[in-house]
Amino acid sequence: MADKKVNPKPKVNENPTPMSAKSERNEPAASQPPKRIEPALTAGRKRFFPTEAIPRLHYNDPKANELISQERPVVLTESNLVTTAMGWSLDFLKINLGEGYFSVYFSDTDKFRYFDEKKRKDFGDDFLVGLERKDMKFPEFVELIRNWKEGDKRIYLQQALTDGVGKRIVIDFLGFNWNWINDQQKRNNWGQLTSNLLFIGQEGNITPVHYDEQQNFFAQISGKKKCTLFPPENFDSFYPYPVHHPHDRQSQVDLDNPDFEKFPKLSSIKGHEAIVEPGDVLYIPMYWWHEIESLADSGIATSINFWYKAGPTGKIEYPLKAHQKVAMMRNIEKMITEALNNYEEVTPFMQSMVLGRYS
Amino acid sequence: MADKKVNPKPKVNENPTPMSAKSERNEPAASQPPKRIEPALTAGRKRFFPTEAIPRLHYNDPKANELISQERPVVLTESNLVTTAMGWSLDFLKINLGEGYFSVYFSDTDKFRYFDEKKRKDFGDDFLVGLERKDMKFPEFVELIRNWKEGDKRIYLQQALTDGVGKRIVIDFLGFNWNWINDQQKRNNWGQLTSNLLFIGQEGNITPVHYDEQQNFFAQISGKKKCTLFPPENFDSFYPYPVHHPHDRQSQVDLDNPDFEKFPKLSSIKGHEAIVEPGDVLYIPMYWWHEIESLADSGIATSINFWYKAGPTGKIEYPLKAHQKVAMMRNIEKMITEALNNYEEVTPFMQSMVLGRYS
Repeated sequence: MADKKVNPKPKVNENPTPMSAKSERNEPAASQPPKRIEPALTAGRKRFFPTEAIPRLHYNDPKANELISQERPVVLTESNLVTTAMGWSLDFLKINLGEGYFSVYFSDTDKFRYFDEKKRKDFGDDFLVGLERKDMKFPEFVELIRNWKEGDKRIYLQQALTDGVGKRIVIDFLGFNWNWINDQQKRNNWGQLTSNLLFIGQEGNITPVHYDEQQNFFAQISGKKKCTLFPPENFDSFYPYPVHHPHDRQSQVDLDNPDFEKFPKLSSIKGHEAIVEPGDVLYIPMYWWHEIESLADSGIATSINFWYKAGPTGKIEYPLKAHQKVAMMRNIEKMITEALNNYEEVTPFMQSMVLGRYS
Repeated sequence: MADKKVNPKPKVNENPTPMSAKSERNEPAASQPPKRIEPALTAGRKRFFPTEAIPRLHYNDPKANELISQERPVVLTESNLVTTAMGWSLDFLKINLGEGYFSVYFSDTDKFRYFDEKKRKDFGDDFLVGLERKDMKFPEFVELIRNWKEGDKRIYLQQALTDGVGKRIVIDFLGFNWNWINDQQKRNNWGQLTSNLLFIGQEGNITPVHYDEQQNFFAQISGKKKCTLFPPENFDSFYPYPVHHPHDRQSQVDLDNPDFEKFPKLSSIKGHEAIVEPGDVLYIPMYWWHEIESLADSGIATSINFWYKAGPTGKIEYPLKAHQKVAMMRNIEKMITEALNNYEEVTPFMQSMVLGRYS
């Protein structure tokens, strides 16, 4: 069975990681048969759209590899990808995470809608978000989150792991299951690992629906998150901001208060849903829309992601796939914005090109 | 006075023409002061939009050169550009135009809306026009136009002059005022002369509103034409067909039956109008929309145009000009059509990119 073929791999991490670390102990702790494959029960915010459960499979299940190779989401159990990080409590991290500064976001609401700081600067004062970034040392963050009370701004730490972290963290990092994840990278022909983002946030925090331009293994360490994904074919349904906008890659829609008049195609979406728990790894394929909700009553949610660049394009086949069209649109939008040399001219230009002609 | 500086130019046509002809007699027959500068009276179809008269200036008037250099339309009088063609009656042409085949268009209506034959073929059977092309020898065309009766399809000959024409025609062609027109080409930094299209059509024929990608000196030989022009800033108002469509560069609107609900921006257009008579030359700047109507009761309308490629772009200045944006849109549309490799995907792609995002 293919299940048995996973472990006998070279024990050295051949790919440099953002922490420049090489794997020293990469033997997965377990390779048992699947324990939980039933879909998680629905929890969290009630939503207007139907969902189906993202398959939940043992990391060695050949079906899991098939889904990944098809760029379809899957929750992997038992991968032990970040088992060594299971002890990363706030107290542990306070001592071991190191002396560096960490990006902590403060939100006026429960939504943390990412914005591009460079685009925000270029875009000018027209753009204000209810979200603010402060850089602080880790113990300061721990104080804030522990003393947080209703009415305070919500807090979400989102920081890429770097070489600056303490030695204990480096050791745990080296203990990640690089063997398995490097094998995934190779078999799917992905590009390099670009970063490991560490997320530590409060229950109820929401990362609104957006897409990334990278392949993502999203590993849960503590707390529970509801992850709702939508395929790139739903590009139209989510009405993403213009590419030059600070909210590039984010949907303009508010899934809590859907405006079907303004965004008519939103009404027909269908989600792919999973609740990830400590030890689970969710594969979020590149260009898939996703919303992440830290579930209430599940404690502080800690996750770490593994972002990989796309592989080489290879031979173009027609018809183009939805995600290839998304990439094309992004390039066209960038080109137009660059050529016009003025943000304010982009919208009328787009309208001239399309309204009454292709509409 | 600048008026006096025009004639002492080299007497040799330095630019190859589509007929590969060199000018032998290029001294303008006259260089008198302006005779008629009043705007022509409005005639032809009644239209819903206001118009202003295109300035009508002596070809030596410095203001005329200024307008041309600003890419604004002007009617030039007394240029003698095609004085040697003034004797091109149907009988004369029947004898002298030569043995070649000529493109003659037959229309179900009074409109001759150009279509791109290659695009028509690529586009498939979805596209049918009430216009048909037949290639015939010139005497056959003369028979048709002379025996035409109400109820027959309308006829319009549109044929580029080539080396195949008879000797008398070549002599007349060499007698065009190349001296003046070559000087215009140089002073405005245009590219090469690409073709001289000969138009012979019935009274009442209409070439519906469209734009060309070339600079155009449009010379009237017989009959009268009402020419209505609109600047490239009106791109949106005319809702041009998609670039991959056989009617590329043509407006979708029908100026006889304007559909303001479908084309709301059409309601605010303002035209620039001129009636050109034998001996007049209208400068139609590149990317300017134009409709040409052969006026009733003015006899068979014969015109010849001089199409020049655009000059080199030079230094880009911001904000971009309207015609530069039109060129940009055309390139983007071509690129998208090419990349998708399927006409049917272009419209949904455009809609995905723009609707609800830039609209």
